[in-house]
Amino acid sequence: MPPKSIAEELASKQKAISIGEFFERNRQILGFDNPSRALLTAVKEAVDNSIDSCEEARILPEVLVEISKVTEERLKVVVEDNGPGIVRKQIANVFGRLLYGSRFHSNRQARGQQGIGISAAVLYAGLTTATPAHIVSKIEEDPAANVVDLFLDTQKNLARVVKEDVLAWDRPHGTRIELVLKARYQRGRQSPFEYLKGTAIVNPHARLVFVEPDGTRTTWERATPDLPALAKEIPPHPHGLELGELDQMLRRSSSKTLQLFLSTDLSGISRRGISDVLQKGEFTGRENPSAFSPERVERLLAALKDTPMATPSAECLSPIGPMLIKRGLKNVLGSLRPEFYSPPVSRPPKVHAGCPFIVEVGLVYGGDLPSDQPVQLLRFANRVPLLFQQGACAITQTVADMDWHRYGLEQKSGAIPVGPVVLLVHVASTKVPFTSEAKEAVAHTDDITREIELAVQTAARNMKLHLSRRTRRDQAMEKFTIIQKILPRMAQKASGIVDKPVPDLTRVITRIMDVVAVEAKGSGEDPAKPSPRTSLTLTNYTSRIRPIELFLELPLESVKEGFSAEPAPETVSQELGRVTFPLQKLTPNAKVTYTLTWPKGEEMEAEDVDIFVAGVDEAHLLGADPLPGDWDVRLPAALVEAAENAEIAAARPTPAEGDEEVDYDATEKKESFADEE
Amino acid sequence: MPPKSIAEELASKQKAISIGEFFERNRQILGFDNPSRALLTAVKEAVDNSIDSCEEARILPEVLVEISKVTEERLKVVVEDNGPGIVRKQIANVFGRLLYGSRFHSNRQARGQQGIGISAAVLYAGLTTATPAHIVSKIEEDPAANVVDLFLDTQKNLARVVKEDVLAWDRPHGTRIELVLKARYQRGRQSPFEYLKGTAIVNPHARLVFVEPDGTRTTWERATPDLPALAKEIPPHPHGLELGELDQMLRRSSSKTLQLFLSTDLSGISRRGISDVLQKGEFTGRENPSAFSPERVERLLAALKDTPMATPSAECLSPIGPMLIKRGLKNVLGSLRPEFYSPPVSRPPKVHAGCPFIVEVGLVYGGDLPSDQPVQLLRFANRVPLLFQQGACAITQTVADMDWHRYGLEQKSGAIPVGPVVLLVHVASTKVPFTSEAKEAVAHTDDITREIELAVQTAARNMKLHLSRRTRRDQAMEKFTIIQKILPRMAQKASGIVDKPVPDLTRVITRIMDVVAVEAKGSGEDPAKPSPRTSLTLTNYTSRIRPIELFLELPLESVKEGFSAEPAPETVSQELGRVTFPLQKLTPNAKVTYTLTWPKGEEMEAEDVDIFVAGVDEAHLLGADPLPGDWDVRLPAALVEAAENAEIAAARPTPAEGDEEVDYDATEKKESFADEE
Repeated sequence: MPPKSIAEELASKQKAISIGEFFERNRQILGFDNPSRALLTAVKEAVDNSIDSCEEARILPEVLVEISKVTEERLKVVVEDNGPGIVRKQIANVFGRLLYGSRFHSNRQARGQQGIGISAAVLYAGLTTATPAHIVSKIEEDPAANVVDLFLDTQKNLARVVKEDVLAWDRPHGTRIELVLKARYQRGRQSPFEYLKGTAIVNPHARLVFVEPDGTRTTWERATPDLPALAKEIPPHPHGLELGELDQMLRRSSSKTLQLFLSTDLSGISRRGISDVLQKGEFTGRENPSAFSPERVERLLAALKDTPMATPSAECLSPIGPMLIKRGLKNVLGSLRPEFYSPPVSRPPKVHAGCPFIVEVGLVYGGDLPSDQPVQLLRFANRVPLLFQQGACAITQTVADMDWHRYGLEQKSGAIPVGPVVLLVHVASTKVPFTSEAKEAVAHTDDITREIELAVQTAARNMKLHLSRRTRRDQAMEKFTIIQKILPRMAQKASGIVDKPVPDLTRVITRIMDVVAVEAKGSGEDPAKPSPRTSLTLTNYTSRIRPIELFLELPLESVKEGFSAEPAPETVSQELGRVTFPLQKLTPNAKVTYTLTWPKGEEMEAEDVDIFVAGVDEAHLLGADPLPGDWDVRLPAALVEAAENAEIAAARPTPAEGDEEVDYDATEKKESFADEE
Repeated sequence: MPPKSIAEELASKQKAISIGEFFERNRQILGFDNPSRALLTAVKEAVDNSIDSCEEARILPEVLVEISKVTEERLKVVVEDNGPGIVRKQIANVFGRLLYGSRFHSNRQARGQQGIGISAAVLYAGLTTATPAHIVSKIEEDPAANVVDLFLDTQKNLARVVKEDVLAWDRPHGTRIELVLKARYQRGRQSPFEYLKGTAIVNPHARLVFVEPDGTRTTWERATPDLPALAKEIPPHPHGLELGELDQMLRRSSSKTLQLFLSTDLSGISRRGISDVLQKGEFTGRENPSAFSPERVERLLAALKDTPMATPSAECLSPIGPMLIKRGLKNVLGSLRPEFYSPPVSRPPKVHAGCPFIVEVGLVYGGDLPSDQPVQLLRFANRVPLLFQQGACAITQTVADMDWHRYGLEQKSGAIPVGPVVLLVHVASTKVPFTSEAKEAVAHTDDITREIELAVQTAARNMKLHLSRRTRRDQAMEKFTIIQKILPRMAQKASGIVDKPVPDLTRVITRIMDVVAVEAKGSGEDPAKPSPRTSLTLTNYTSRIRPIELFLELPLESVKEGFSAEPAPETVSQELGRVTFPLQKLTPNAKVTYTLTWPKGEEMEAEDVDIFVAGVDEAHLLGADPLPGDWDVRLPAALVEAAENAEIAAARPTPAEGDEEVDYDATEKKESFADEE
């Protein structure tokens, strides 16, 4: 035999690599770098699977996570759910095979998508402790549960089952997995505790129970009995499709004609759109898609790009929604008594590489949040908290790259800003582009980054608006306090000196104040704490008769579960939590009090109510905001006129002619103590 | 048929996911997030493969990279090398199949390891432009080159060959790949230019030619004709082996007995070690490894952990080496004229998960490097520059987590320090744990992180030492300047006033200076620029006779290629570039000049020479450093004594008794103009 050439020598070493061996050697890619991260990843993959399968089966999730110590270096992780269970023949595949699952090919939002996560945990457990995964699963139809002990054989990428059995189980259905792995337990940042807390924030329909190695038991109770709407599978949207992708779709399509392909294999194209595309691309619609020449594919893509499309349907997505974002943040941060919750921002759906996505943002400011620390960034993708790889994540990058000085926060160039702020960012997509299989960081893609930026900017603008309002209010409140406290004292003192009766200062005060003030307080012992009733008192400290209208935005649950108000509201919107009251005319110095009684058992803070007043311009309003434009309410003519007059009045130092003005001037002249001081 | 239960319904959707489809949907994991990163990744994968295959075939690499514009959104990338070529039947596998390659199973350092990179580039090109990869490859034995045009079929994970041909090619052997992909060209940070520049730094044996879309041609010439030693394959080291890994190794081993397994399937265990392991684990050595019970595996692992092992062999690694790190940094940073190059740090080999690794660090300080910017961090893994995912990388994290204030740099807590510093960190391993298949960031594992920290700390300490030396030298130099310039002027002025001849101040100056000064300069027009000769002048500005000895550390190539010195050196070390000269006695005010003539064609800067002097303590030395301890040179008795005396003298204000002191006092008394001023 002649000696091998170098090229042949090298060729003889070339061979296929099993996916199992690949991940065995590169387990850090799957999130199993080190013992503490490995623990978190294992818990996360199991819990995500549990919640996913419950939602698919329309079951309210109940998940138990229990971590206990085996030896100094080994922990046992148990995750048990009330999901639909797994049929016996699939148990080995689901847990013992990488790249095997149900959600990869479905084009809808899910926590797990890759069919890697839980099998990777089984692989890691086997590698580090040589202990098989112990799985118990029962489906409703079966009388007993199936028990399977298995390893993942990395060379074959198949389960190596070492034991099979059946077991009487008291659950009607559910799945339990037990893993023994090399791991380290810790609380705090990047811990299973943190992960479960985050999961509770964005999955208020789930009940989570966590037992720590020292026996500490924490339960996150269900905060809503409503399962989120099931995300629907839809075909890819033409936006962002690449030439080669379209080529593949055409070649693999079972549609017999191009017309059929456009209407069933793609989403978002109307009938009109289809005929536009056919016309622009010079197609008849009867072409066979599987035999397209490269030139034809290119022509079709150009025509698709050139035709206006409907916004992608959000049916395949399951965003958290503004109400639950706010509630979630309140659950976690309530004890820090933040002074401001930005209205959560939910961007309209956009498309990345044919996959619809939505970005949602929540922002909380002030209270006991530390003002000398970087903003706390809570990252979520498809309702899963992201705890590792913060530096690699497009969410972090986008926040750091923004100029926060313009929103009133300190910032060192290119870093996360500093301030008493918690920022929640959620990216929901049929396919979140993660930087690795460990699903810890969102990759930097122009379209997703852009949406994150827009959403965060909106929240930041709200914060800025709040900060400037606060400044204005603080100034007004200061004036209010000084006038209310100092003037009467001055009057008393002066009266004593000149030996005259103390005059009634109400009108003077009113003239100086020149605002309509709204004061909200709870009925409890501490008026600032949650209580079963909240009262809102509106006082007209201006010298004009004020036609005004009160509007409230309440937490949705309160509206749904039935609150009551006295005087009675005019309209109540169940979807938006918006409440309107009839027009009131307030004469100078007159007060009106609205009392809100919350649903039984629910205690509310005055801060949970957003208060808006129409008929008074911002300069003359204290403790409430003018009605925002997005309410789209038709105001009575009197209010519109009053608001216009108020604006004119605000622009001039003296009252406008024709205003219903009460003349205090005569009285004031007699009692102008201020001048005599 | 009865209706399906939920669990059965869900089970019916479960299926295997092709690795091709997985990466098709998750191309961001492979580094193809966006058009500019995709371009860099494609170039990188192709060039890394080229250099790897050249090194394996012991060929000095010559790689051409050419990028040209096809349309506004599409670029064509050509990478051509002089490697051994690929045999015809393997071309389709190497370029058209993910997880196929020669380096995954070999336990030695290589750029590519996963068998994913170049196929991923082919996949991306097909997806975005529906254009096949065009490959030309010729092996030495064949008369002509093979030409193959192919796509990667993601469903099958196999090449779909669309054209095959042969072609007369003027190269004796080599490979050329042409890809058309959706990409964006840019220079600057994270660009192909940057990547190639970095590659040139750490691969000085490669010649790289780069042609940009506008036709600009850049060549990085070979800086050394020596190929790095070929890294050898070695079996895994027992350190860091997990129980499950050992279990698998045993079951898969072809060794018939445990004794054989220990000596051939693992590395680093001596004969003595083997008998220790057998004894501690209570084995005979004749056990069949493939039939070990879990208990036995555990016992074996415990015995392995309990037995001292040799440091892992570094033969499987190919570190850059201190000399080439320094030279590489000089090549790139020379124009910024840094004032200090830290001696590069190369840590001894350690083991992570059975795989040996080495951390190397270079540090450059000062000159025209910006002092108000974060330290520039150059990350390398297995001689490949890492340009993306800086935030996710253990190298970045480790540098940011260190406390840099103690080394004299500004730093905001947890951030990269600020200062005129370039820091090069190279991790070389048989298996670098990357955070994703894109191989852009090193994952955070305790043992690698620890080594990075130790190496960077050493370099940082050197920098700190330099900074304090610089401060001392600056002070001495200031004194020197003042004395040399001001005193003579004063003398002249005073002489004029009193109408006396100007006295000779040399001795006064000497008495005040009290140092041995070393001045290095080039022979060219600008003494600070590279020139064919460098002169070193030593002047004894002390009042003692100084026995001194000069030591130089020169760039290795200069020593190898033959430099000459006048007076002639005593010894020259080829390996270390260290040069020693015979002992000299310098009387007060005496000078001696050494002239170094560099090899033909080579111009050197004075700064390229590290100058050390023995016989004078640091306090009396200007322009050179005392001989470091690691030189391990036996000094003549006179020098040792002189150094000891100097130390004693330095501790006292007056000269020590018995010193060979010349008495200037009489002279000084007559000429003490300073007092008369």
